[in-house]
Amino acid sequence: MHLGQFIRSVPDYPKKGVLFYDITPLLGNGEAFRECIENFSTGVSKWQPTKILSPEARGFIFGAALAMRLAIGFVPVRKPGKLPGETRSVSYSLEYGTNTLYIPADALASKDRVLLVDDVLATGGTIHAMRDLVAASGAQIVGCAVLLELDALHGRKNLDMPFHTLLHV
Amino acid sequence: MHLGQFIRSVPDYPKKGVLFYDITPLLGNGEAFRECIENFSTGVSKWQPTKILSPEARGFIFGAALAMRLAIGFVPVRKPGKLPGETRSVSYSLEYGTNTLYIPADALASKDRVLLVDDVLATGGTIHAMRDLVAASGAQIVGCAVLLELDALHGRKNLDMPFHTLLHV
Repeated sequence: MHLGQFIRSVPDYPKKGVLFYDITPLLGNGEAFRECIENFSTGVSKWQPTKILSPEARGFIFGAALAMRLAIGFVPVRKPGKLPGETRSVSYSLEYGTNTLYIPADALASKDRVLLVDDVLATGGTIHAMRDLVAASGAQIVGCAVLLELDALHGRKNLDMPFHTLLHV
Repeated sequence: MHLGQFIRSVPDYPKKGVLFYDITPLLGNGEAFRECIENFSTGVSKWQPTKILSPEARGFIFGAALAMRLAIGFVPVRKPGKLPGETRSVSYSLEYGTNTLYIPADALASKDRVLLVDDVLATGGTIHAMRDLVAASGAQIVGCAVLLELDALHGRKNLDMPFHTLLHV
């Protein structure tokens, strides 16, 4: 099955000049979604992750399903105002603005081997921010898995970690 | 394993007088999260769902993992400004304000048997809204699965569907 057939390109969304990749057709097809998660599982198992970190909201879809598949913990990386209690935070720039991301202060231990998971790797701003959150926790990043990588934006640059990417455009 | 031990009560969050249930300890424990999804899977299989609908953002975590487990499609229910192309929408009231939810216009077919999945059932506003989205699509709702139900808020009232709830408070 070629998973690319389930991703729909939408010109000028959310604003003029941006090409948006709509993954809802892939999610809606049970066989395609499962193949995607099985592919992730096969590709990242060698890194022996103990935790998955994914940003809200679309990242949750892939990160949580993969955490279930690998039977490891899932850490949701959240936008402002979503987490009670003590948190760690980092501010970052992304394609359409600036934001701050949060995780629970006790979500990661220094022994954790952390896999970052997201749907799309564009400029890499979110992945950079998550890397900094993991580093501040004293845990180790073992790699990053994404469904779709936009090669022209060079999101991997300056990210010293292995990548597992299902689709490149 | 008693999953309730992984849910942390936080008084006065996000505002005074509200008791917030923090599920991040459950998510962070791979064994607990997997048990939760396996419990959902066992409980809902008899309804033979063909699609899962979950609201962003925490609902995605449980809905996507269960969709992967059942090998059926997942439909993300989104907040405003997140979906390109044609959508169906419904406005609803929730505990902390008002919102509008969207799904892709072509996400559900009339033959679909839809399972609603969310983390917490409080007043039921989000579930009501999702029920209306499914009805407008001509599909059939087969049930609703939630991790935690706040019985005192009677969220099930006026929702004519079977529920599978892991934890009650």
